[in-house]
Amino acid sequence: MRPSKRAADELRPVTLERRVSKHAEGSCLVKFGDTHVLCTASLEERVPPWLRGQARGWVTAEYGMLPRATGERMRREASAGKQSGRTQEIQRLIGRSLRAVVDLEALGERQISVDCDVLQADGGTRTASITGAWVALNDCIEWMRARDMVTKPVLKDHVAAISCGIYGGTPVLDLDYLEDSDADTDANFVMTGAGGLVEIQGTAEGAPFSVAEFNQLLELAQGGISRLVDLQKMAIL
Amino acid sequence: MRPSKRAADELRPVTLERRVSKHAEGSCLVKFGDTHVLCTASLEERVPPWLRGQARGWVTAEYGMLPRATGERMRREASAGKQSGRTQEIQRLIGRSLRAVVDLEALGERQISVDCDVLQADGGTRTASITGAWVALNDCIEWMRARDMVTKPVLKDHVAAISCGIYGGTPVLDLDYLEDSDADTDANFVMTGAGGLVEIQGTAEGAPFSVAEFNQLLELAQGGISRLVDLQKMAIL
Amino acid sequence: MRPSKRAADELRPVTLERRVSKHAEGSCLVKFGDTHVLCTASLEERVPPWLRGQARGWVTAEYGMLPRATGERMRREASAGKQSGRTQEIQRLIGRSLRAVVDLEALGERQISVDCDVLQADGGTRTASITGAWVALNDCIEWMRARDMVTKPVLKDHVAAISCGIYGGTPVLDLDYLEDSDADTDANFVMTGAGGLVEIQGTAEGAPFSVAEFNQLLELAQGGISRLVDLQKMAIL
Amino acid sequence: MRPSKRAADELRPVTLERRVSKHAEGSCLVKFGDTHVLCTASLEERVPPWLRGQARGWVTAEYGMLPRATGERMRREASAGKQSGRTQEIQRLIGRSLRAVVDLEALGERQISVDCDVLQADGGTRTASITGAWVALNDCIEWMRARDMVTKPVLKDHVAAISCGIYGGTPVLDLDYLEDSDADTDANFVMTGAGGLVEIQGTAEGAPFSVAEFNQLLELAQGGISRLVDLQKMAIL
Amino acid sequence: MRPSKRAADELRPVTLERRVSKHAEGSCLVKFGDTHVLCTASLEERVPPWLRGQARGWVTAEYGMLPRATGERMRREASAGKQSGRTQEIQRLIGRSLRAVVDLEALGERQISVDCDVLQADGGTRTASITGAWVALNDCIEWMRARDMVTKPVLKDHVAAISCGIYGGTPVLDLDYLEDSDADTDANFVMTGAGGLVEIQGTAEGAPFSVAEFNQLLELAQGGISRLVDLQKMAIL
Amino acid sequence: MRPSKRAADELRPVTLERRVSKHAEGSCLVKFGDTHVLCTASLEERVPPWLRGQARGWVTAEYGMLPRATGERMRREASAGKQSGRTQEIQRLIGRSLRAVVDLEALGERQISVDCDVLQADGGTRTASITGAWVALNDCIEWMRARDMVTKPVLKDHVAAISCGIYGGTPVLDLDYLEDSDADTDANFVMTGAGGLVEIQGTAEGAPFSVAEFNQLLELAQGGISRLVDLQKMAIL
Repeated sequence: MRPSKRAADELRPVTLERRVSKHAEGSCLVKFGDTHVLCTASLEERVPPWLRGQARGWVTAEYGMLPRATGERMRREASAGKQSGRTQEIQRLIGRSLRAVVDLEALGERQISVDCDVLQADGGTRTASITGAWVALNDCIEWMRARDMVTKPVLKDHVAAISCGIYGGTPVLDLDYLEDSDADTDANFVMTGAGGLVEIQGTAEGAPFSVAEFNQLLELAQGGISRLVDLQKMAIL
Repeated sequence: MRPSKRAADELRPVTLERRVSKHAEGSCLVKFGDTHVLCTASLEERVPPWLRGQARGWVTAEYGMLPRATGERMRREASAGKQSGRTQEIQRLIGRSLRAVVDLEALGERQISVDCDVLQADGGTRTASITGAWVALNDCIEWMRARDMVTKPVLKDHVAAISCGIYGGTPVLDLDYLEDSDADTDANFVMTGAGGLVEIQGTAEGAPFSVAEFNQLLELAQGGISRLVDLQKMAIL
Repeated sequence: MRPSKRAADELRPVTLERRVSKHAEGSCLVKFGDTHVLCTASLEERVPPWLRGQARGWVTAEYGMLPRATGERMRREASAGKQSGRTQEIQRLIGRSLRAVVDLEALGERQISVDCDVLQADGGTRTASITGAWVALNDCIEWMRARDMVTKPVLKDHVAAISCGIYGGTPVLDLDYLEDSDADTDANFVMTGAGGLVEIQGTAEGAPFSVAEFNQLLELAQGGISRLVDLQKMAIL
Repeated sequence: MRPSKRAADELRPVTLERRVSKHAEGSCLVKFGDTHVLCTASLEERVPPWLRGQARGWVTAEYGMLPRATGERMRREASAGKQSGRTQEIQRLIGRSLRAVVDLEALGERQISVDCDVLQADGGTRTASITGAWVALNDCIEWMRARDMVTKPVLKDHVAAISCGIYGGTPVLDLDYLEDSDADTDANFVMTGAGGLVEIQGTAEGAPFSVAEFNQLLELAQGGISRLVDLQKMAIL
Repeated sequence: MRPSKRAADELRPVTLERRVSKHAEGSCLVKFGDTHVLCTASLEERVPPWLRGQARGWVTAEYGMLPRATGERMRREASAGKQSGRTQEIQRLIGRSLRAVVDLEALGERQISVDCDVLQADGGTRTASITGAWVALNDCIEWMRARDMVTKPVLKDHVAAISCGIYGGTPVLDLDYLEDSDADTDANFVMTGAGGLVEIQGTAEGAPFSVAEFNQLLELAQGGISRLVDLQKMAIL
Repeated sequence: MRPSKRAADELRPVTLERRVSKHAEGSCLVKFGDTHVLCTASLEERVPPWLRGQARGWVTAEYGMLPRATGERMRREASAGKQSGRTQEIQRLIGRSLRAVVDLEALGERQISVDCDVLQADGGTRTASITGAWVALNDCIEWMRARDMVTKPVLKDHVAAISCGIYGGTPVLDLDYLEDSDADTDANFVMTGAGGLVEIQGTAEGAPFSVAEFNQLLELAQGGISRLVDLQKMAIL
């Protein structure tokens, strides 16, 4: 039995609330249970220096946590003067995941910066971030389309993400913080609406895991992401 | 006529929503119109090194803005590697303002860190921060009192803050971003529930201002802060 | 009775020594008693990026303290790798104060950087800095005028600054370090030669202060700044 | 056909040269073809602060690249003043991988720091690092055993790593730089001598990949790591 | 003929003004012509961590330049966020030079920090710094002696420094900025009162120099330092 | 008797191995006994900003040490976030030494960056770096000549470096770490093939040294550098 009393393949309650920012071209407050992430997509009429003059755009992501998003207050990264390795790893993952479904040429020579700021953390902040970031990104692109800034489709598909783990010997979906702390294996999956794999990250927290176990996690993830994509579709109706 | 169509002495709609954080000992989401600040108060069983062994506590504050809290996306301070002068100036102001109403000996040898993170900015982020921070701080101290960690009163009074300015020749209360950009003089006032002055900051944006003008701003601020203190009282009922 | 035995409205001995730097276009060694600040004004034929091509100039200021300007040696900021919040707050104040009396269009597309370096500190370093910086700035502009680089008046007025505080219940002018450490309220005023207010900063160090008390401080400041402006006028004869 | 003319399941020539450092307790120069990494294991009689007094040790890793290890010279991270996100991601991976096979209690309250410095890069630097780091770590522990500093087994198993990818539609093992630049999918696998999975990281570089494709990569990795473990066994004879 | 019209072996006018700081235990404003350096010696009742408990003290030095000490304003190092290589090289040299004449055991477990801040630069700032720093250090130690903090002699000898160079083919002493910019070889010598060599640094700016030329520079330096030591002796009478 | 049992004027075994890097235009692995430094020379088609448009090139150097190059592991500078004063001092010395024999106009508007990374340290890392860097630089220039990028001679002469010191009262050549730790005086000499002096650095570690002692060190250095230049000549045959 999971501490959260959820079934092994049960997501936490997920909500995707759009248009939560007065300023951003696209925005989404995503909640995976008690994990709350504010995602904004900001359009900028410039690209990184190494991409100039190539008639292609760029999508990048930054990730942050409010100092008391967590059970114990953590030092503010702006005050520490640098981003932790974990922060950089997560924001690189979000950026790669989003770019996997973006047609950068259709976007034109512009950059969209997606900021994922964790207001409250209870496990799964990176997967919630990716799932919510797609909604913010979609709204940003629709904002551009309404102004005739893009004509061809820019987003090729949905992208969403979920974590899985082996908790007390049982593969389970969408771990919260308590479950994650006790899990033997922790894996994150990023997949498209069509079911293609974009990112797989699996880590043995305790004992190594077997190929058979890994395949069970992958199967759980396929089910979970399919539901997340449905929720994205409903959100942008 | 102000762009916001408010009367010269009219506050924006103000809300103070408590208990918005699952983890923090005290928290408050404060809104001054479209300016939204998430304030959390975190209790830590340690004090800064220079205060150790003196049987007194400390209250400190940090301030941050999400990158797209503003009309144009700003660079994330954690990524830039340092906090701007403006950020440091504001967080020092918040800390001083709160400490003005705290009995640090009654608090005991502990630190309360108040984080004020601007989710959306439309002028007056520092005054909203101070006003909301007091509510989060009060809840943190009540959390301690419920656990018998403090016995004597720790908070000596309320503290709240408001901005004033001279817009189109007329002194007005609680400037939003549009008004602030056009104002000739910009002043921030921090006052206690008893009407004592804690901080005064007045700056000539264009032409210098006269003593008479400054006194008009001060009078407006007295009225506005009195209403903010009433709202704090209702919020903590 | 003040520790310095001065009357309540008495400035410390103030001197403004010009042309103390072989290299700078303008310079002034200002002394408010034992507070000594070396101010230099450096002309640079460039403006900050955000001001380019607008036919306007800029005046900026930097502030520093030698490590042993104070009673206890402080860590060198260059060695610590960053400027403290206090340093940034002060240099922003100096820059704003100077710009309040500069016609940036008459200056032309150039920048004047004013450096205020505290050689010895005994309270009031920011007010001495502003008062001396004006003299250095004036000399820099006269240096330009002698070379026909400016034709119209660039400085619209004098600007000077003084601190006030409530010491032992009595409002007093121009606090030295000893008085400042014991004062209940600390206020800094920046005013023009014409008596216009440029900056007001008042802080309750202990108990909050009343409007009546604040008005007494303001009145003291008006007298003190009037005398500082007279000293500036004599210095530049 | 791969540019390297290797069979799909063929490793590059791999060598593991021990005792290449006069100073380090354990060391290994690992070569995967033209990728050369110098791994040293340094014993330190202290643990990180959060682990003190728990009778357990720690194994950590740092990763670096000489500036001209690559085709184009890259900026030295020490000169840039910070480690890139990529560097931090890799050194966190190496550390986790090694700890997966270390009995931290048997190690005692000590830290072993493994440094992996890339002298020459041609793809697969992180997998070569992990594979060589295990050899350096093993020698460091044997150095301790010879001095009776450890008595029980500290290393529970081998650990090694390899990359796989889909190149021109075909799943291939151990990509060099040229192949990696053109591959559609890039995956890194870390496994133990017993065949347990420690880390899986798969990324779609172009189009998303299918579960079937991923399973082919996993199978290739199992073969490759099995051979790397054999090479480790021969190296430490 | 030198631009300064000085004879080849002629120092610039040198003055050593003591007790220029109200706060520092020892201080000296040293002038080598238009090069002005403020030296303060600060006593601290602590030593660096690696020296604790060894009944020995430490003398260290820091060096800085005011931004407009030079002909062109230079960026403030505190604002740049780091000290340049040149700054670090010079402050290491000053510290080594002073320690060469200090009996660290006689000093006791304390640190003296000597700060050398260049108020105005015209060549030879490092040699002026060392020469003035010795005077400040001597006064600091006498301050301690007057309080019975040291009993045995702490300073074993004088130490002073001078630059030499080959200007227009002629070896000359004590180069000012103009001469230094044109010199072919630049050398700095640090010597004790007894004529012992503490540091020699010679650099070919243009063509390499011969052993014969170097010996001529060394001879000039011996004469110059001998006069500087005489000036130190007169200064501390 | 030296710990190394070498004669007073005897170098350690020196080897200069070229073409050790697959990528760099020039490279050399230099060994002075157990001191091993990997030197690479990287051609870049750009010059520093202050040199643009002057039809001259630049040669610069960077220096680093692997964390466990030394007896005790040292903190990685990239992780510490800055280069130590020692590192900066050494890389400035290497750069100056190389430029002393380069015709920057013949190089054309390009930069060669020479990286000297110490794989293993046993004293004399800076002198080994300079000696090996010249070989890497020479190969880089020959690489350019083979591509008709330079036509005139770029290298005007050899440059090599050696340390000397007074060990147990006797002047000795090429100190290893053990000897260096015990030496009274430590001196580094950089000379050209023609015997011209490029850099002299002498430091009294204990008692000051006399002119006569210094001259003995200089004589030893002349002999040692002459042999190093011979080894360079043989290496590039």
